[in-house]
Amino acid sequence: MIVVLKPNLDPAEVEKVIAEVAKLGYEPRPIHGKVQTVIAAIGDESTHHTLETLASWPQVEHVHRVQKRYKLVSREAKKGHDSILHIHGQKIGAGQKFCFMAGPCSVESEEQLMTTAQAVKAGGATFLRGGAYKPRTSPYEFQGLAKEGLRILSLAAKEYDLGIITEVLSERDVELVAAHADILQIGARNAQNFALITEAARSGKPILLKRGLSMKIEEWLLAAEYILAHGNPNVMLCERGIRTFETYTRNTLDLGAVAAIKHESHLPIIIDPSQGCGRADLVLELCKAAAALNADGLLIEVHPNPAEAWSDGQQQVDFDLYARLVEELKPFVSAVGRPLE
Amino acid sequence: MIVVLKPNLDPAEVEKVIAEVAKLGYEPRPIHGKVQTVIAAIGDESTHHTLETLASWPQVEHVHRVQKRYKLVSREAKKGHDSILHIHGQKIGAGQKFCFMAGPCSVESEEQLMTTAQAVKAGGATFLRGGAYKPRTSPYEFQGLAKEGLRILSLAAKEYDLGIITEVLSERDVELVAAHADILQIGARNAQNFALITEAARSGKPILLKRGLSMKIEEWLLAAEYILAHGNPNVMLCERGIRTFETYTRNTLDLGAVAAIKHESHLPIIIDPSQGCGRADLVLELCKAAAALNADGLLIEVHPNPAEAWSDGQQQVDFDLYARLVEELKPFVSAVGRPLE
Amino acid sequence: MIVVLKPNLDPAEVEKVIAEVAKLGYEPRPIHGKVQTVIAAIGDESTHHTLETLASWPQVEHVHRVQKRYKLVSREAKKGHDSILHIHGQKIGAGQKFCFMAGPCSVESEEQLMTTAQAVKAGGATFLRGGAYKPRTSPYEFQGLAKEGLRILSLAAKEYDLGIITEVLSERDVELVAAHADILQIGARNAQNFALITEAARSGKPILLKRGLSMKIEEWLLAAEYILAHGNPNVMLCERGIRTFETYTRNTLDLGAVAAIKHESHLPIIIDPSQGCGRADLVLELCKAAAALNADGLLIEVHPNPAEAWSDGQQQVDFDLYARLVEELKPFVSAVGRPLE
Amino acid sequence: MIVVLKPNLDPAEVEKVIAEVAKLGYEPRPIHGKVQTVIAAIGDESTHHTLETLASWPQVEHVHRVQKRYKLVSREAKKGHDSILHIHGQKIGAGQKFCFMAGPCSVESEEQLMTTAQAVKAGGATFLRGGAYKPRTSPYEFQGLAKEGLRILSLAAKEYDLGIITEVLSERDVELVAAHADILQIGARNAQNFALITEAARSGKPILLKRGLSMKIEEWLLAAEYILAHGNPNVMLCERGIRTFETYTRNTLDLGAVAAIKHESHLPIIIDPSQGCGRADLVLELCKAAAALNADGLLIEVHPNPAEAWSDGQQQVDFDLYARLVEELKPFVSAVGRPLE
Repeated sequence: MIVVLKPNLDPAEVEKVIAEVAKLGYEPRPIHGKVQTVIAAIGDESTHHTLETLASWPQVEHVHRVQKRYKLVSREAKKGHDSILHIHGQKIGAGQKFCFMAGPCSVESEEQLMTTAQAVKAGGATFLRGGAYKPRTSPYEFQGLAKEGLRILSLAAKEYDLGIITEVLSERDVELVAAHADILQIGARNAQNFALITEAARSGKPILLKRGLSMKIEEWLLAAEYILAHGNPNVMLCERGIRTFETYTRNTLDLGAVAAIKHESHLPIIIDPSQGCGRADLVLELCKAAAALNADGLLIEVHPNPAEAWSDGQQQVDFDLYARLVEELKPFVSAVGRPLE
Repeated sequence: MIVVLKPNLDPAEVEKVIAEVAKLGYEPRPIHGKVQTVIAAIGDESTHHTLETLASWPQVEHVHRVQKRYKLVSREAKKGHDSILHIHGQKIGAGQKFCFMAGPCSVESEEQLMTTAQAVKAGGATFLRGGAYKPRTSPYEFQGLAKEGLRILSLAAKEYDLGIITEVLSERDVELVAAHADILQIGARNAQNFALITEAARSGKPILLKRGLSMKIEEWLLAAEYILAHGNPNVMLCERGIRTFETYTRNTLDLGAVAAIKHESHLPIIIDPSQGCGRADLVLELCKAAAALNADGLLIEVHPNPAEAWSDGQQQVDFDLYARLVEELKPFVSAVGRPLE
Repeated sequence: MIVVLKPNLDPAEVEKVIAEVAKLGYEPRPIHGKVQTVIAAIGDESTHHTLETLASWPQVEHVHRVQKRYKLVSREAKKGHDSILHIHGQKIGAGQKFCFMAGPCSVESEEQLMTTAQAVKAGGATFLRGGAYKPRTSPYEFQGLAKEGLRILSLAAKEYDLGIITEVLSERDVELVAAHADILQIGARNAQNFALITEAARSGKPILLKRGLSMKIEEWLLAAEYILAHGNPNVMLCERGIRTFETYTRNTLDLGAVAAIKHESHLPIIIDPSQGCGRADLVLELCKAAAALNADGLLIEVHPNPAEAWSDGQQQVDFDLYARLVEELKPFVSAVGRPLE
Repeated sequence: MIVVLKPNLDPAEVEKVIAEVAKLGYEPRPIHGKVQTVIAAIGDESTHHTLETLASWPQVEHVHRVQKRYKLVSREAKKGHDSILHIHGQKIGAGQKFCFMAGPCSVESEEQLMTTAQAVKAGGATFLRGGAYKPRTSPYEFQGLAKEGLRILSLAAKEYDLGIITEVLSERDVELVAAHADILQIGARNAQNFALITEAARSGKPILLKRGLSMKIEEWLLAAEYILAHGNPNVMLCERGIRTFETYTRNTLDLGAVAAIKHESHLPIIIDPSQGCGRADLVLELCKAAAALNADGLLIEVHPNPAEAWSDGQQQVDFDLYARLVEELKPFVSAVGRPLE
């Protein structure tokens, strides 16, 4: 770590900080600059007490970490190779087929899901999405069909040979949801719910980890690190928009996160344009950008009649738009060198 | 609801929207302005399907809700009266004694907590805080002493006759934590973890609900609404800083939220200045503002030796500063008309 | 406008609001819902006093505008047609050749700019960028070569037959800068400096208006509206990243803004990936996304030796990377149907 | 500066960075840690080329500055003493009388301003605020009475023996505005309009510098540094709310900024609660917090009839509320030890 001291400190005060750095197990190397002293503290930051606490001392201006805080998820961990996930007969990750995960925000009925599954299958989707458990801002909003929703998901997925991705909200539901789903989705609101994340990790099922509403890239990777540290390497990250001051869109889709994640990590990254902007009329364009950035796939909300959807209808695309979207995406997917089939 | 249509729409298109509004159970009242038509949709928004889904239609510009989404937590629900919580012999709420909840970020050892409990008791605290379960950004950071932490909390609280407030992270720990604590703390990262919130609500214990890092006032009140809707009226809100672009402080303490919550709700509001700014050197000043804004109390991190704290040392105050803070706060607490003893 | 009243108001109080709405020139149409009254106020919002001021009244919950605040920049103003700008023999806008504006952050010397102009010309750029006047966060940082910088820009542009785009910071420099430049750039920090914007508008020169650091789409369009309202239709918008909580990148490039602007306006939109992320290593990927989103061009920082650049070296690409970038972009530019030459 | 290199670099690569650090004029001191090398670069950062540009190199992970970027505005510059400004017979700054600057958002008419001046004078104000030049988001909104506004300001100020604070928007108006005003206000939108700031500095008049909508504390202090560096020491800072995701309030008033500024700088700090929250109903409470935080004064919008104000009526308080506010503030002002008269 690097401990930057205040300017013009009394040497005795500098010594106190040096002594504390040593006490906390680091080898202190003071460097006396023209204006102020900096203490380089040699020692493995991942096993020692952090020196960031020294910022509470009046002698200290700043403390900077040197090492990255994540390990297993870092590119270095796999020596620059990318993780390819094998799920339901599909490969997800760098260079693989661009993956479409599509379906309604919520599972509402057998009829609704069957027709949607048919439509998205026709549009090249390999995974069916649909919420059986819904995290809703208000307790008075539809909370999902729960077990009945899982039953319907299984039925539709079987009928159309699709994998299932669905959100799990409670530690107690992990086992049940894992029994039906191919991919467990951890939603944005639970992106730092480590009890749930750990429980999901232990299920052994692949996990799609959404970015929290105001989660920094580093924090997101560290949440994924929890999953790998609990023995489950099958993780995808999903950018779904961050919260900013802009109100034209529901969230601001941080498409640059695709490049950032590819830089820092070997994990696949998926884009959710529906949550990302919250407006069906912008979804198609955002999908093109996602493909061009070489994201590994899309998680996209499709509904037979968005105006009557039981949740988030304003951001769901109908079957026609979904079909057009898949078609219009092809040249961009080709341009990044991924196979179309 | 109010459905604002796009300008210069064909009358047939306007009719389609009107028909859908009616189909969804509202009485549509179109108002034809100079430039565009607005449809006022009469019906109880809390029991009908939302019309916000209509924003997915090309004819529609915007949809505005009219009613507030929260009920039980609203000022109207108690006809303008404030909730006073009775916990561990104390009253928390409007006009009551300003409540000090103080103690370390994490419970580290019996000795650490005993000395801290003694110090905060001497400084007028009535509740002892201390994390036994810690939500940490990295899996490699100290995760709390768990059960042993709860045991130590009970010991120290008993010795110094303090109530206990401590965070619960997992639905499965609610029962155990509730057996030790007087107040269950739901942390910022779990502020929309509705499974945990609901479980905590059912325990019947008073709950302190922290504001999420990027939670709007409305969303925060709706998360509290979950607790009341599950039959537990004993809720305090806790502002602990929101995430903004500013990096001088760890978070931006939204002190105006005190006034906003007093406006909208009957629930008590507590300020956490430690998380709020993340710097011990700003805590005292923020406490004065909290008192002046007529917050109902403080949740404040106090540690015998912050530099060696196992978590968040940079924002914990030592015993001397805590004692000074309590003393310096008195004129501000008096100024809002609260009793000092 | 729509004036939403508080629930359960006394009818006499409702009447007061209705009277004020009428006094301010609107025709009030009260709609009495189950819980509260809403007043639809009929009248042209663009010529009447706003009713938003009524939010200061205790009877009023919210006031919503109905009409859009911008006119000349809106898609409707050109009946759905896009503006095509003709500058220095080039056409910029929908369906035209993808426009490369490239060059150093700052003009540093004749040699620096000549070599850069040669390199970007070889890489298909049609405009040379380079700051002669630099808005720097600190007064101790390099503020630009001023007139000498303009002279060098003219020299290099002439030598390589490039148009010039350069920033103007002062109303007093508009005339001088306009005498050298083909496009006046209004920077993010001046995006609501209406004195400068108006002066630039009056010069008659095409203007590239960057989005302010925390500017909403609506505010950005309204700043552009100032230019058109002052008789200058030659405006391009430039998204260059907004300020968010994320620190991995310098700014968060809001690529969705391309789609939003195309939706709302007829003006061309340019992407500045350099400011957008502040990291040379992410620039290439962001450019691909910009092309896929059908942005009309790029404003990109290129320097012969970024490490020794006099400003913002960390985000400037070198000649090799620029050349590669132009090459790798081609399939994406083709995919949106734009001509490559 | 501190240059943190990537882990496990080849020694030859490390040498290249060391050589560049030396070439740029610093004395490089490499420190070889367990995982990666850090180069401490000794040299005065305020006179040397920044090394932050090295972040564009593939060998480099991060670059950290060591020295603070501001000097003249820093507490150290005045050896811990606070600046006290003497304006219109008043002293503004630490320990002085709490300063009320009050008046309408815009000057609308002689009658409006005269009645307001009388009311605020009666309520202890020593400065009259009122905009003659208004920066409006839309070109179709009221832009201020300009010269006529200045004339009315002078008239009212003379009549009631008040100082004048008013905003200047254009470099060209600085001389004229300075001829009427006692304090030149630089607004949030112009907080990094360095041409205007420099021109205002040169006028020699005291300047109130508002914080930009998304300006970090450091950037704000650096903008003030421009003024001092141009020979004008009479600067006040004004916190007026920053832009965040919250929509309940127009802005989020960062009250903690008072403590941060007092920590970092000797300059007085003023709070603008009106812009800070954008709602008249929260203003009083925010003022109490400002006083408790030991801000040096308030800039507050007061209007005889807010509902009919020509700008920002929703955030202006009427005469009754202003009078009540001044009265209710007294105990808080006393509590920080300032004289009431």
